[in-house]
Amino acid sequence: MNVFYSETHRRHNPPFEVFDGGVRVPYLENPDRMDRILRALLKSNWAKILEPLDFGLDPILAVHDKEYIDFLASCWVKWLASKPQDPAVFLPATFALRRHPQKPKSLLGRGGYYIMDLSACIVEGTYEAALTSANCALSAADAVRGGQLSAFALCRPPGHHAGRDYAGGYCFINNAAVAAHQLSTYGRVAVIDVDYHCGNGTQDIFYKRDDVLTISIHADPDFEYPHYSGYAQERGKDKGLGFHRNFPLPKGAGDEAYLSVVDRAVEIIQRCKPDYLVVSAGMDIYADDPLGTIKVSSTGIRKVGERIAALNLPSVIVMEGGYNNEALGENIVSFLEGFR
Amino acid sequence: MNVFYSETHRRHNPPFEVFDGGVRVPYLENPDRMDRILRALLKSNWAKILEPLDFGLDPILAVHDKEYIDFLASCWVKWLASKPQDPAVFLPATFALRRHPQKPKSLLGRGGYYIMDLSACIVEGTYEAALTSANCALSAADAVRGGQLSAFALCRPPGHHAGRDYAGGYCFINNAAVAAHQLSTYGRVAVIDVDYHCGNGTQDIFYKRDDVLTISIHADPDFEYPHYSGYAQERGKDKGLGFHRNFPLPKGAGDEAYLSVVDRAVEIIQRCKPDYLVVSAGMDIYADDPLGTIKVSSTGIRKVGERIAALNLPSVIVMEGGYNNEALGENIVSFLEGFR
Repeated sequence: MNVFYSETHRRHNPPFEVFDGGVRVPYLENPDRMDRILRALLKSNWAKILEPLDFGLDPILAVHDKEYIDFLASCWVKWLASKPQDPAVFLPATFALRRHPQKPKSLLGRGGYYIMDLSACIVEGTYEAALTSANCALSAADAVRGGQLSAFALCRPPGHHAGRDYAGGYCFINNAAVAAHQLSTYGRVAVIDVDYHCGNGTQDIFYKRDDVLTISIHADPDFEYPHYSGYAQERGKDKGLGFHRNFPLPKGAGDEAYLSVVDRAVEIIQRCKPDYLVVSAGMDIYADDPLGTIKVSSTGIRKVGERIAALNLPSVIVMEGGYNNEALGENIVSFLEGFR
Repeated sequence: MNVFYSETHRRHNPPFEVFDGGVRVPYLENPDRMDRILRALLKSNWAKILEPLDFGLDPILAVHDKEYIDFLASCWVKWLASKPQDPAVFLPATFALRRHPQKPKSLLGRGGYYIMDLSACIVEGTYEAALTSANCALSAADAVRGGQLSAFALCRPPGHHAGRDYAGGYCFINNAAVAAHQLSTYGRVAVIDVDYHCGNGTQDIFYKRDDVLTISIHADPDFEYPHYSGYAQERGKDKGLGFHRNFPLPKGAGDEAYLSVVDRAVEIIQRCKPDYLVVSAGMDIYADDPLGTIKVSSTGIRKVGERIAALNLPSVIVMEGGYNNEALGENIVSFLEGFR
């Protein structure tokens, strides 16, 4: 299986993020995650690690707002120029709460207009890393479009929380959405998101579209991030009505509960008869994930991969979250086994 | 002049707030502010310090959403019950960015639904302090309604950033709005906000009303908090169209620039012929304020007070911001001199 990966992700390495309660903690979405995954992939006899191609901005601007991307591109230089008290990361402290105001001109105003939480920390290399991460997803889409049954985009930063014009939850550019949109120009696409957290960005991006079916299985937003979407009654809008599904799960959901929902999602995808599949693969459903409360075992994760792979669709698997670094490599390799 | 003040504000003393860049700093809106003001008032020969009366929840719920007030009342106990990593303050890390989602059930979901920034930190005594602060404003309104020409509500926490259903910028309950609404049941009211920051909460609360004129003079939101309102073109809506005015000022505006805008505001108030005046008195317009960029001198502040007092309206003066603690007492006393 072709695995698209670039070392550029190391340029995005914020020293901290801020948790609820105003607590600074070391950035959980860190480069070590990739090292663990690479090590496990290199031990397999089937993973072929390749550099991504550069697809330029067009496929990114097909799902993201240009001014938002401009903000990501220019934020760091403007932040330093503002001579901040502590320039370590760019992070706003004021947010465009439940309002659609005119877009402020200032950096900090734009920050709280475009960033929804305190984990989407921007540093000098964030934009470059995010672009390269999207190119990994586009390269995988290209490989699958070219006839390979599957390809893995080893993306970092992840993407599924990033919407058309906002960053959040470690995500800046929505890699899965970029790949899905690209494939949608060739046929019908389904996206299945098995990250522990709701793929709110992907949901928002395709919410009014009927050519990309999106399904997310995740911890119930009634108790978990991202709080403001991921509810079962959100099923798409306008032309997209019926083309989005959320499956919120309670704390402690184990292999059986999780796999039965995967089976329902697989059925929905089958009925939709897509030509391509994009899988947002977050490994934070793992029982021992530090951010997760869902209890899927390593064996369970293998089975999730197998059941989705059984759809037998040309599939782009996109790396999303997963923060138990020790188990991350083994888990994603188990997950991918079914697709090779 | 009657000054309404309670020691209860000391129960609200968050150990820190979070600035842009994710920087934890000691809470600038601190109890020492009140000590400095009290000391200066006690040196005057005209200030009579009185305990506020308790007006109950009705006048507060007249301008605030009940579920929001319930959130403020219950937040701390729920926060401790959630066994947070660091329970020092309640502060959300995820915000309802530019969306009007269903109200989440969870504490953290509600946190980012009701709180717009990282300075509205909630601790055990916040709700009690905020209620008592509102009672100071209501007591001052009551005194003025009872025939006194002016009264000073020495409020802490301040209020003008708090909207009908949100907290922000050190503010939880909008003291000035609570007083203005109370007075509006007896006659026409004008609110003039001379805090350095836009009185966005007051603006929002009365935005569709024609019985309470609101005017705010402040640093341009194009470069300053609260970023998402305070623009000159915001002039009220529906029935309230024409009954709100913003006067954004550039960095460095000095006495002359500031006073000429005060004169314009005074003219607008005169034309409106109100029966009562509420003054949101923030002393962060002072040249040496650590949060401010406007350069009004102590003499300038005295003149601002005099020109507003020259309206000769029954006036409730409500304490808002001001963070140069050394100068705070002298400045607010200078400001109040005109009203006594």
